[in-house]
Amino acid sequence: MTRKRIAIIGAGPSGLAQLRAFQSAAQKGEAIPDIVCFEKQANWGGLWNYTWRTGLDENGEPVHCSMYRYLWSNGPKEGLEFADYSFEEHFGKQIASYPPRAVLFDYIEGRVLKAGVRDWIRFNSVVRWVEYDEKSRLFSVTIHDHEKDRTYTEQFDHVIVASGHFSTPNVPFYEGFDTFNGRVLHAHDFRDAREFKDKDILILGSSYSAEDIGSQCWKYGCKSVTVAYRNAPMGFAWPDNWQEVPALVRVEGKTAYFKDGSSREVDAIILCTGYKHFFNFLPDDLRLKTTNRLATSDLYKGVVWVNNPRLFYLGMQDQWFTFNMFDAQAWWVRDAIMGKIAIPDRETMLADVKERQDREDAGEDAKYAIQYQGDYVQELIDETDYPSFDVAGACEAFFEWKYHKIKDIMGFRDNSYKSVITGTMAPVHHTPWKDALDDTMEAYLRN
Amino acid sequence: MTRKRIAIIGAGPSGLAQLRAFQSAAQKGEAIPDIVCFEKQANWGGLWNYTWRTGLDENGEPVHCSMYRYLWSNGPKEGLEFADYSFEEHFGKQIASYPPRAVLFDYIEGRVLKAGVRDWIRFNSVVRWVEYDEKSRLFSVTIHDHEKDRTYTEQFDHVIVASGHFSTPNVPFYEGFDTFNGRVLHAHDFRDAREFKDKDILILGSSYSAEDIGSQCWKYGCKSVTVAYRNAPMGFAWPDNWQEVPALVRVEGKTAYFKDGSSREVDAIILCTGYKHFFNFLPDDLRLKTTNRLATSDLYKGVVWVNNPRLFYLGMQDQWFTFNMFDAQAWWVRDAIMGKIAIPDRETMLADVKERQDREDAGEDAKYAIQYQGDYVQELIDETDYPSFDVAGACEAFFEWKYHKIKDIMGFRDNSYKSVITGTMAPVHHTPWKDALDDTMEAYLRN
Repeated sequence: MTRKRIAIIGAGPSGLAQLRAFQSAAQKGEAIPDIVCFEKQANWGGLWNYTWRTGLDENGEPVHCSMYRYLWSNGPKEGLEFADYSFEEHFGKQIASYPPRAVLFDYIEGRVLKAGVRDWIRFNSVVRWVEYDEKSRLFSVTIHDHEKDRTYTEQFDHVIVASGHFSTPNVPFYEGFDTFNGRVLHAHDFRDAREFKDKDILILGSSYSAEDIGSQCWKYGCKSVTVAYRNAPMGFAWPDNWQEVPALVRVEGKTAYFKDGSSREVDAIILCTGYKHFFNFLPDDLRLKTTNRLATSDLYKGVVWVNNPRLFYLGMQDQWFTFNMFDAQAWWVRDAIMGKIAIPDRETMLADVKERQDREDAGEDAKYAIQYQGDYVQELIDETDYPSFDVAGACEAFFEWKYHKIKDIMGFRDNSYKSVITGTMAPVHHTPWKDALDDTMEAYLRN
Repeated sequence: MTRKRIAIIGAGPSGLAQLRAFQSAAQKGEAIPDIVCFEKQANWGGLWNYTWRTGLDENGEPVHCSMYRYLWSNGPKEGLEFADYSFEEHFGKQIASYPPRAVLFDYIEGRVLKAGVRDWIRFNSVVRWVEYDEKSRLFSVTIHDHEKDRTYTEQFDHVIVASGHFSTPNVPFYEGFDTFNGRVLHAHDFRDAREFKDKDILILGSSYSAEDIGSQCWKYGCKSVTVAYRNAPMGFAWPDNWQEVPALVRVEGKTAYFKDGSSREVDAIILCTGYKHFFNFLPDDLRLKTTNRLATSDLYKGVVWVNNPRLFYLGMQDQWFTFNMFDAQAWWVRDAIMGKIAIPDRETMLADVKERQDREDAGEDAKYAIQYQGDYVQELIDETDYPSFDVAGACEAFFEWKYHKIKDIMGFRDNSYKSVITGTMAPVHHTPWKDALDDTMEAYLRN
């Protein structure tokens, strides 16, 4: 019998978790399938692979990165630590709780460098199209290799989609955007907050991007932040030059008009209006369509495509848990592919999806949602050999984080939490977040 | 015998020329093939279909438009007039020679509205992949229909690629771009010059985008324009706050350093560094790879794909002639598909490509190049029933235009030329270009 061939699409946190999951089995002496990971970018890390580019990249492909300079984790690292590779193992010491992007990139990379899986990845390789053939039970994956500028097609027994869902912006139109005399951009294209120094900025949205991009602009000296919400204000205790206003109605010249009749002159409009699940390489029979929620449509156990269980998706949920949830999923998918976990019939899978969605819909607050996703992570972990960790403790870190944000939205990152992997307490960072203008790894680790 | 099926990819000036070519034959009583035109955008016009959007569009697809607000034609309209549909026919009078974008869009649209071909176009329809099957001699074209959010595949006897080559930016990296504290953008993402009012802008490049985007920024009140060239300066008589400097070496903070050792603090960097021929829907055996030149690689007569003469490309050349050249090509391709023009063997086609490239390479100046492309247009026209026009006269308009630019780079658009279609002289525009801040059609036509 020939070895199964597995295609993983994307080498971000989810795809890398999948590589590590297989490598970990191989390390234990198990016979693993042939793995090929296709990565669009020139390096791994997915969203965490920062680029100054916006729009289209050096190969003419949509830029994957939605991160910006000066981004620090907006949740405590104690909620995302790898159970098989602690921060202390990587950095040789415990570090503070809200690392900047470069520090987290280094941490993600550390584990997979140690695992030695880089050779399994084909970089600058864009998946153009995937098709499933009923007769051979194989997927045809067509790739554009930008290094050689050539296209080719290979066959696989399984495909694992790990291409993320925070890269294709949802960009609404408001009257006057087409004649606005400043810059209109989506959060996806936001890069350096200093561009907006001394500017009056308008932000649309009331979720994490709105909160964090507004905070960045405030930190780096914008003149004022106006945030327009559709449903409800975020309601934090904002600085004096920050206000929340009802929904934008229209723009005229550089004046923005809001639903309460108020108006304001602004220099730039930043759309923090979310992202779309977008798969331009998948036909209808393989393509996930879901809103951004904890229990996605059509994925059994959150990972198995119910319409063709040889296809898997990683990390397609809305996320409280991130890296550790991707790990839980990746280990589970590995075991399903290796025949250690049985995938039930379609009826059972559909019932599973429905039960998860009903249970999600029954919740009313963030605490419920955090607990819900913690339970999901625990459920998957219990079915594989992924190192068990104190999921309840991670939930606790999230609960505290929520509280710290309410107490001081510009100071919550100055808190520290206890690792649920090593049990050690994070040090207090040497500089309050609002004064720490240098986001390099060197500066952050100087504790 | 069933009718042939033809897929046209793109409903910009080239694709619309192709629709009009077939409709014109039908109008004369000829039996034409089944035509389906796939257009990614929600409307026709290609680059001329302006959007405020940059990066990815409302469907998550790369934005096609590279045009900006306040763009006026940078060449005289007398060099691009349709031989079968004059400006006078469309506007009911002769108009001035350098129309703004909205006026040219209206003109392009006028001809195809009259032809009644809108029903042949499927909008919001992105071609994902094309494959050719040797056995059936058919192309499979896979489309993502964003209106219904579904994918499907159809078979065609011929495919005509008319997707343009000024939409995928060529974006070089220079040291320090990743830490520049302002905005770095490609011309493709430039929209409203007023964003750069009172700013010091740096432009990289020395071709049309550099010249025109710099001029727009100057017209709308930027503080200064610095243009860095790699080979030679454009050398026009620029305004006082405009300077040309040798190539950029690196950026540090907001300071740009140039090859001659000079430096300058700048607020924004605009990359006018050209575009790539980019076809993310074509496999190697169908995909054109060429530099941006008058005689492209691998296209017999500039339109027939030498490796599979059932496939055609329109408008893939570098361009002096535009709309009228696309027409000449579209009429020729129509007649090739309808069997009125024979396509020779591969040897002959390759010899044709070589002869064209050698002849292009023998030229040394713009005048030669204009004449060369005029000859090409004439050659194609002579082989079809496209209405013949005074190509030499159009070349003359280009020669004059070149001279007018050297005389006054900020005033060349105040000149007028004679139509080679109707023989009438264009009126002098009511306002000098540099003072005409309103680029609407209403303002322009108020003559």
